[in-house]
Amino acid sequence: MRDVAIIGVSQTKFGELWDASFRSLIADAGLSAIEDSNIAGDDLDAMYVGNMSSGLFVNQEHIASLIADHMGLNPIPCTRVEAACASGSLALRQGILAVASGYHDVVVSAGVEKMTDVVDATPAIATASDIEWEAQQGATFPSLYAMIAKRHMHEYGTTREQLAEFAVVAHHNASHNPRAQFPFEITVDKALNATMVADPLTLFDCSPVSDGAAAIVLCAAEDAHKYTDTPIYVKASQQASGTIALHDRKDVTTLDATKYASQKAYKQAGLSVKDIDLAEVHDCFSINGILAIEDLGFCEKGQGGVVVADGQTRTDGDFPINPSGGLKARGHPLGATGIAQAAEVVWQLRGDAGKRQVEGAEVGLTQNVGGTGGTCAVHIFGREPNNN
Amino acid sequence: MRDVAIIGVSQTKFGELWDASFRSLIADAGLSAIEDSNIAGDDLDAMYVGNMSSGLFVNQEHIASLIADHMGLNPIPCTRVEAACASGSLALRQGILAVASGYHDVVVSAGVEKMTDVVDATPAIATASDIEWEAQQGATFPSLYAMIAKRHMHEYGTTREQLAEFAVVAHHNASHNPRAQFPFEITVDKALNATMVADPLTLFDCSPVSDGAAAIVLCAAEDAHKYTDTPIYVKASQQASGTIALHDRKDVTTLDATKYASQKAYKQAGLSVKDIDLAEVHDCFSINGILAIEDLGFCEKGQGGVVVADGQTRTDGDFPINPSGGLKARGHPLGATGIAQAAEVVWQLRGDAGKRQVEGAEVGLTQNVGGTGGTCAVHIFGREPNNN
Repeated sequence: MRDVAIIGVSQTKFGELWDASFRSLIADAGLSAIEDSNIAGDDLDAMYVGNMSSGLFVNQEHIASLIADHMGLNPIPCTRVEAACASGSLALRQGILAVASGYHDVVVSAGVEKMTDVVDATPAIATASDIEWEAQQGATFPSLYAMIAKRHMHEYGTTREQLAEFAVVAHHNASHNPRAQFPFEITVDKALNATMVADPLTLFDCSPVSDGAAAIVLCAAEDAHKYTDTPIYVKASQQASGTIALHDRKDVTTLDATKYASQKAYKQAGLSVKDIDLAEVHDCFSINGILAIEDLGFCEKGQGGVVVADGQTRTDGDFPINPSGGLKARGHPLGATGIAQAAEVVWQLRGDAGKRQVEGAEVGLTQNVGGTGGTCAVHIFGREPNNN
Repeated sequence: MRDVAIIGVSQTKFGELWDASFRSLIADAGLSAIEDSNIAGDDLDAMYVGNMSSGLFVNQEHIASLIADHMGLNPIPCTRVEAACASGSLALRQGILAVASGYHDVVVSAGVEKMTDVVDATPAIATASDIEWEAQQGATFPSLYAMIAKRHMHEYGTTREQLAEFAVVAHHNASHNPRAQFPFEITVDKALNATMVADPLTLFDCSPVSDGAAAIVLCAAEDAHKYTDTPIYVKASQQASGTIALHDRKDVTTLDATKYASQKAYKQAGLSVKDIDLAEVHDCFSINGILAIEDLGFCEKGQGGVVVADGQTRTDGDFPINPSGGLKARGHPLGATGIAQAAEVVWQLRGDAGKRQVEGAEVGLTQNVGGTGGTCAVHIFGREPNNN
């Protein structure tokens, strides 16, 4: 198995991008990543695209063909990968497997979602749950995560103030991220007094509906220095499945898929959670950010809210979480999120993250969830090549 | 790069399967392939699923999680791949890359589509074209392929009778296939006098709307004999992109993606078209079967209709095409088709194809098209392991 390196990254501005189309968003991100990587156009030999629901959002399937065509990439293979909100990370993982296998040498893995062309994004998002047993019975994603939050509060004493603190840190970080949808600070009071979406989650506990795209260029690690002085190495790429429906779990306050994928990732990388200098985690709702901190092993089960309120997840804390602003404040164009997470880790490890830089970051992790945990992908990236 | 072998295959009956749900179809196919492969349940370590549009057909995305869950496979990774009607072959290809890379040892690649739960499948199928420049202007898939057929008739003198002969051979082969949607013979007269769908294509030039699923179990070639006495080896797995819209092509009578992918596949396998004993090609419309015969190199450009009418594509002809009955008569549940093509080649190479057996078949090829040729995947399989 060949080692794989990242040699280029990009992310469009995330937001309600009325003047950008589906195809222009992904072309912008893809071409910017190619430019960042210093490859020549004919070096590229495959592309993967993560996207959750172009069919329901913009009435277009077969998007990999559309994208290859619009970007001028024909005849190279272009493949769409879908796993709800984890689609981006799975496109990244397929790109990694393609290079590791030797089938391809230079690959773009990208993600895109254009969510604002429908009147209401909620029904499309609900197709990430078990439609027959959840959505058709009236469950929306805010309500599913609200049930998780209620149970976490009951089991562990987590408070609404702690949830609000998660959003406050996210917005603070996003205020230093020029690509973020919401680059402004908020206060705990503002979060607590905002519109209730699904008790106990207010508006500021919820990630937004977003348009956007992101892209990454991968190559064989041994070739990386041909293109860049600062390659970032893939140290682990793991993925796991959990029950798609919430009611099938023994414990809704733990995402088994996160635990399984992260434990395999630590093992693949030969690292422990203590070696992780920063993590981009899947805070589609503030409670899911807290579950991630716990399930990845940064703190004991049930202590996620406490450590957030204690400041440990800030960029200058013990284990910085979501320096980009996360899904909450950077924005959450579903298929793009996993790639944007990885792009942020790359900027952090290159030392290019400006005022949101985690000082001295050597190793970073991404955790990207589909649905309420039916899918989870965990990647670990590092500044140093692997010892094989 | 590790060589890859196929150790198990399955296909559900294709048809209008009112008593089968999306999740039951894919579980039936997946579990049957696992049984066919003799692996133990815990040998399996990843699954890929090809599906075009579960979002538009059954209002469910995140299907890989649903499937892993329903099949009892959690926590192994399960990933959906989409490329319109080529989704199945791309799921197969991702499974091959996963094993070749060493990331996974035993993988199921499957495909599924449940198309009959909507009142009209046409709008969902149209999302495989360029929605903004084709479908929204009124083009449906029959009309797009009808334009290709008209041009082929104009350029090369192809006749409606030759198109009808393609369907006659397909139905003859399907009459020996217990899994086929239409296991009955037709005549040239019946095809010519059938309802006109899009001039010059009548009902019998068009593949049907189908429900169904198929699955394949892959492992490292070096391990194949642990599970089966008749492994079939993957000799090539290639994929290419072409323009998604028909009007962007210099010549609509050639699918550049087929030519590109097949030439790369012959090179990877170290074989020429003369070494191919049978092919399963993408005859979503009879004209596309004829394009495939030409673009794969079985005959000169423009002679596809002639060689079909001449009987050369029958199971006892010079280059047997679609012994299964093809998309036309086996049926075409979009995401399942690429996997069903490969399953048929495996049965043929094992010598298990009954009355539709191509005698002495050693090497078989599949060609699977997305849209009107925006994507094409070509695989070559053989009874003998590769010489590395």
